[in-house]
Amino acid sequence: MDRPRRGRKHLIAMVGLPARGKTFTARKLVGYLSWLGYPTQAFNVGEHRRVTHGPGQSHQYFDPANREAAKQRAGIAEEALDEACRWLRGAGRIAVYDATNSTRERRQSIAERVEAEDFELLFIEIVNDDPAIIEANLRETKLRSPDYEGVPEAQALADFRKRIAHYENAYQTLEEDEGAWVRLRNRGAQVVINRVYGYIVGRVVFFLSNLQVSNRPVWLTRHGQSVYNLHGRIGGDASLSAQGAEYALSLAAHVREVFSPEAHLDVWTSTLRRTVLTAEPLGLQTGSWRALDEIHAGVCEGMTYEEVERSMPGEFEARRRDKLEYRYPRGESYLDVINRIDRVLIELERYRTPVLVVTHRAVLRAMVAYFKQLPIEETPHLEMPLHTIIKLTPTAYGCLEERVPLPPRVEG
Amino acid sequence: MDRPRRGRKHLIAMVGLPARGKTFTARKLVGYLSWLGYPTQAFNVGEHRRVTHGPGQSHQYFDPANREAAKQRAGIAEEALDEACRWLRGAGRIAVYDATNSTRERRQSIAERVEAEDFELLFIEIVNDDPAIIEANLRETKLRSPDYEGVPEAQALADFRKRIAHYENAYQTLEEDEGAWVRLRNRGAQVVINRVYGYIVGRVVFFLSNLQVSNRPVWLTRHGQSVYNLHGRIGGDASLSAQGAEYALSLAAHVREVFSPEAHLDVWTSTLRRTVLTAEPLGLQTGSWRALDEIHAGVCEGMTYEEVERSMPGEFEARRRDKLEYRYPRGESYLDVINRIDRVLIELERYRTPVLVVTHRAVLRAMVAYFKQLPIEETPHLEMPLHTIIKLTPTAYGCLEERVPLPPRVEG
Repeated sequence: MDRPRRGRKHLIAMVGLPARGKTFTARKLVGYLSWLGYPTQAFNVGEHRRVTHGPGQSHQYFDPANREAAKQRAGIAEEALDEACRWLRGAGRIAVYDATNSTRERRQSIAERVEAEDFELLFIEIVNDDPAIIEANLRETKLRSPDYEGVPEAQALADFRKRIAHYENAYQTLEEDEGAWVRLRNRGAQVVINRVYGYIVGRVVFFLSNLQVSNRPVWLTRHGQSVYNLHGRIGGDASLSAQGAEYALSLAAHVREVFSPEAHLDVWTSTLRRTVLTAEPLGLQTGSWRALDEIHAGVCEGMTYEEVERSMPGEFEARRRDKLEYRYPRGESYLDVINRIDRVLIELERYRTPVLVVTHRAVLRAMVAYFKQLPIEETPHLEMPLHTIIKLTPTAYGCLEERVPLPPRVEG
Repeated sequence: MDRPRRGRKHLIAMVGLPARGKTFTARKLVGYLSWLGYPTQAFNVGEHRRVTHGPGQSHQYFDPANREAAKQRAGIAEEALDEACRWLRGAGRIAVYDATNSTRERRQSIAERVEAEDFELLFIEIVNDDPAIIEANLRETKLRSPDYEGVPEAQALADFRKRIAHYENAYQTLEEDEGAWVRLRNRGAQVVINRVYGYIVGRVVFFLSNLQVSNRPVWLTRHGQSVYNLHGRIGGDASLSAQGAEYALSLAAHVREVFSPEAHLDVWTSTLRRTVLTAEPLGLQTGSWRALDEIHAGVCEGMTYEEVERSMPGEFEARRRDKLEYRYPRGESYLDVINRIDRVLIELERYRTPVLVVTHRAVLRAMVAYFKQLPIEETPHLEMPLHTIIKLTPTAYGCLEERVPLPPRVEG
């Protein structure tokens, strides 16, 4: 039932005070679901407000006593919701409605709207009662918002705190009778799941409950050059070439330079020989995941691309046309790979010690696409050279990529 | 990292008043984890008590004011915990400690013990505030307990309610600072997850939060005979034979007899031709799951068993010796199949309309082993004839199996 482009439509509505991490969570979610192939988009009320009424509104604008502004704000919230619904009626599958939605009344009105449209509704509430987290969030994201461009930091902070206070007075946490919802407290330390049933929302909840906000980098590499690489053959379970074995040594040397033994680096490989052998000289405890195995080329395993083109021109052409969805006969497509490495990525998201993943080209493409939130269509075409270590560092709204080529240099 | 027999050891301790469904949940969990390959066992304090002090103790025995009995009960609880720890020190990987553990003090003492042993601890609390559910649970399970053998129902009920009352007075729900725990309220309507990190507990929580207590049956069948079946070939993506196509028709006729159109039967197939064609005459909305595809025979796809024996005697012999863990080169093992259909089964557990699954022999074996909680070693050897529909109905502590052979009769 991996039919991301068909099926029931979902509106996911965020709930929470300003600066609790709603937008961060919404973006992670949009990234994850898009990566799984579900057409997903965020609809952010703050951005709508800035487009319609300009940035730089002071906290007075958010005071409920300010009738005129309150009316304007309600109008903008409604517009963003309209847009989300319009998109869902069309090509969209999942819309993430990123607004405070902080009163029961507001949520009730969303629920009625969503029911009339025959979409499914899920609320995600972000609660934070750790002042240090809120403070960090304020400084990391809000002060860089277009709302405070050119405003001195102290002044901006004071204004934003007043903006939060306006919402705090009216804030109502989700209650049991408000349908399907998830509450994430203090960055995942506690998760409450209320009346959540169904496949997609199940995946959303599993992802969210494992999501940690961290800036811990991840290290990735392909295996060293294999004998199959040398002959241009697809798939298989070949050993390393002489140059591949050399890469295993230079990888180990590089890792020893970068990580102290106290870093407790964990090394994950696939179950295939070429990744296990590449990790061997590291001498570290390794886990081997079947989910990290290379894309399965089915009946084409062991062939060269030229042989495929010659003996199965139809397959060759189908793959050329749509490398993302094309599935080798009795093999896999890139979408299949994405779905099976999902679990590894969720595990990586919550892992607490640094991890080096030694895997294969197609898997690496899918992993990099996830972390960098690249459009799904680009996944099968990303450059992933052999004998290169990739370091990905998550930042507030993105991911920094560094590539270090290691000797020996080889083709492919 | 699917290394079920190695790695950190886990003690899962149940928490909850009597008759809340702790034992039901513990059994489901043991069944699920064993099926995934983790050596798992439940340690039930009630059974210990009955073995040591005999069944048939009246509620006075559970009165905290009854000092002598309280001492005895504490001793028994300790014995069961000892046994669980002993087992974990040996072959066990996960022990489920099935007791009320209803005070903070008791849980603190378990935590200290588990820490000293260097196991990981997870509490699972079952809370129920719906009197109808408690009543149903009482009648379905407790009245059949050896404690009330030969006792008239009304008397047994009255006694058990008093037993519950003894615990209720002292009951303390789990608090945030009690480490990793999950609270399941009102049969999964609400789930709270507190400080849960890590792979195995993650899987446990995902399973539990989707677990519903239902007696809804599931229907399963293999595809109709395929052209490959006819020639004894493994794997592949062949079409149906003439007899297989006939089975598709008799399956459709049978389903129309059993289900009214209002039943909203859902039909799930694999992505392979032979299951899709088998489901076709049903004319019902079907979902096709890649996770339901037949075990992948890797380099042996398309061969007969005789050909495998002749050309790869080593592989043939390895598979004969351990059919469960044997993995075809570039293919799958039964354990791999179990791990990939995990998600489908969790989805089935919470599905609300009836489902007919049309799949393949190895997958069917794994599914039946899950529902019937059979020892994992038996999985690869279960009889799964062609042209047979299997109905599995969950009961309080097991699963009822009915098999209906449908025409035409064929071999295999």
